[in-house]
Amino acid sequence: MKDIGAAEKYGLPLSMLRSRGNTSVVPLSWVKHILYLLDQRLLPHEETWFAYRSAEDVEQAIRDMVVRGAPAIGITAAFGMVLAAHGLKDKNKGLFVEEWMEKAAFMLQARPTAANLKWAVERLEKLARKHYKMSPCNLTSILEKEAISIWTEDVKANLSIGFYGQALLPETGGVLTHCNAGGLATGGYGTALGVIRSAVSRGKEINVIADETRPWLQGARLTSWELIKDGIAVTLVVDGAAGFLMQKGLIKSVVVGADRIAANGDVANKIGTYAVAELARANNIPFYVAAPVSTIDPFIHSGDQIPIEERGPGEITTFAGKQIAATGVKVHNPVFDITPHHLVTAIITELGVLTAPYGPAIYACFS
Amino acid sequence: MKDIGAAEKYGLPLSMLRSRGNTSVVPLSWVKHILYLLDQRLLPHEETWFAYRSAEDVEQAIRDMVVRGAPAIGITAAFGMVLAAHGLKDKNKGLFVEEWMEKAAFMLQARPTAANLKWAVERLEKLARKHYKMSPCNLTSILEKEAISIWTEDVKANLSIGFYGQALLPETGGVLTHCNAGGLATGGYGTALGVIRSAVSRGKEINVIADETRPWLQGARLTSWELIKDGIAVTLVVDGAAGFLMQKGLIKSVVVGADRIAANGDVANKIGTYAVAELARANNIPFYVAAPVSTIDPFIHSGDQIPIEERGPGEITTFAGKQIAATGVKVHNPVFDITPHHLVTAIITELGVLTAPYGPAIYACFS
Repeated sequence: MKDIGAAEKYGLPLSMLRSRGNTSVVPLSWVKHILYLLDQRLLPHEETWFAYRSAEDVEQAIRDMVVRGAPAIGITAAFGMVLAAHGLKDKNKGLFVEEWMEKAAFMLQARPTAANLKWAVERLEKLARKHYKMSPCNLTSILEKEAISIWTEDVKANLSIGFYGQALLPETGGVLTHCNAGGLATGGYGTALGVIRSAVSRGKEINVIADETRPWLQGARLTSWELIKDGIAVTLVVDGAAGFLMQKGLIKSVVVGADRIAANGDVANKIGTYAVAELARANNIPFYVAAPVSTIDPFIHSGDQIPIEERGPGEITTFAGKQIAATGVKVHNPVFDITPHHLVTAIITELGVLTAPYGPAIYACFS
Repeated sequence: MKDIGAAEKYGLPLSMLRSRGNTSVVPLSWVKHILYLLDQRLLPHEETWFAYRSAEDVEQAIRDMVVRGAPAIGITAAFGMVLAAHGLKDKNKGLFVEEWMEKAAFMLQARPTAANLKWAVERLEKLARKHYKMSPCNLTSILEKEAISIWTEDVKANLSIGFYGQALLPETGGVLTHCNAGGLATGGYGTALGVIRSAVSRGKEINVIADETRPWLQGARLTSWELIKDGIAVTLVVDGAAGFLMQKGLIKSVVVGADRIAANGDVANKIGTYAVAELARANNIPFYVAAPVSTIDPFIHSGDQIPIEERGPGEITTFAGKQIAATGVKVHNPVFDITPHHLVTAIITELGVLTAPYGPAIYACFS
């Protein structure tokens, strides 16, 4: 896991994006059986890349939020499972699949809320089961191709989400986003920020209003950083200011990403998203969710059933090692919330724009 | 302005509070023509008291948020104007009043939103005009008595607000508050936290949910600190989590303070308050505002007319000298917002509990 220090380690999808004139950042790279991750905990101060050679280290990186964002977690986990296969190549067939499956079960525990983690790992599991008679070496090669497909499909999905979504944004004015659903949270380009990138590239004059997004400050640290890199206008506000800006007419639409979407259209996303949705409703502002179909969990009926991760108190009581809260205070730190489907104006996917009633619209995506 | 380092410098109202069995902190002290302020920027890590001997230094302390909270700002400004009088005592009568009035006009500029600043300074101005023929020495003495009255009346008002307000809180369960409307924000005891203190002292089993309140973290640094000191249960959450806790049934009522209340019941309070009010409405949770009548500005028809202070970007982009946001990001930092009266369940004052229609209820307070 040493720092490789250089941005030229970016992998395939970046060239795909660049060929389309996009400069969006990418959070990972896959070169010669090594996974490289841009450490998002250190941004925007340091652009540090670490190299990963085992599934266990990748699982830890997801857990520790070196990489975050549902689609990026899914892609990272897929490459983690390729590393697992690579490490087991010398085992015999039966043992290979058995031990690899154990590592897959372990990987699934890294974080509970993001649908894409489960989706990506299960996609590889299905393939492993289908080809269990193959030699470990060949199966590893098939798994690697599949992980690369998961990555490139995600980037293509984001470009498509951008295409469908940009039409919904205003010609000019403020568009609020919460957390980071950008290049960093995906295989590249982004979901919510992909929609904004697409609108801006078509000449719309969007001023992005970025909620700072406590406790992890994804808005201040990541969204602002990647939008400034792309030359897109961005204004940072505290989470509590979103409602005030809406009252003042400074926000024309809201677009956010998602960590998991239930079959009825309820949306799990970064804590604070529900508040933004309720405020948008009260101020007659459209509230859009941008996410690939891989974020939809058709087996979960409603948001109530989505597990909400609770993280440690230190994320709230300390900053950069310094204590910021009163000693001894109890903390409740749920890091996602559920926005009920009735507050969602539309869900923008790579297959098109879904609107209520979401049940049938989502069902159609899987048919 | 040197640190006097000791809590025994607390002045009159603390003994008044202690005689009633309350241990609430007090943010200021007045001893032998010196104003002492507890530096709230350093809490909860350091309890440092500074001594002030001039109106100019007091104005700077209010501007720099050594002291904050509308009632505390009003009381501090009043003592600042006593210091101004003290410094002008050797002038002749005419010059004394003229120069003192200039200093009063300067003091009024310290911060724009809090009603109590204007209210307190104008109360002294009225007295100075009435007694303009008096010797500077006697007038200074009258102004000092009036400043002490402003302070002690505020503490009494808070005790009365607590008495009226506690009846509205549930027997048991979570009560959310935003920012700090506690002893630190007032002459002592607090408005919103006074209501909670009063409820707890009557045996109600309240668990306070404290929004951390970005950007200044009054919830994390001040509300948690003073409640822990009093042995009242408190759980800290990020601002974005309030809605999630409401959805989960963990919050039974909301009680906040106010910086200014318009004649129609619109409430200016710390940025993020409006979001809490909108979320409370959506989740059928009562939303109470606790404030003394001195916070009501009967000359302002509605919230639209209340000036909203915009503070510097550094409050959002840096923490403890360390940069936390992407370099070059634009910032919008309004530090108050307006909660429209239709979202306010009741306004708890020292004269009783006001309910809609607020126009006539507020008018009656001034009749």
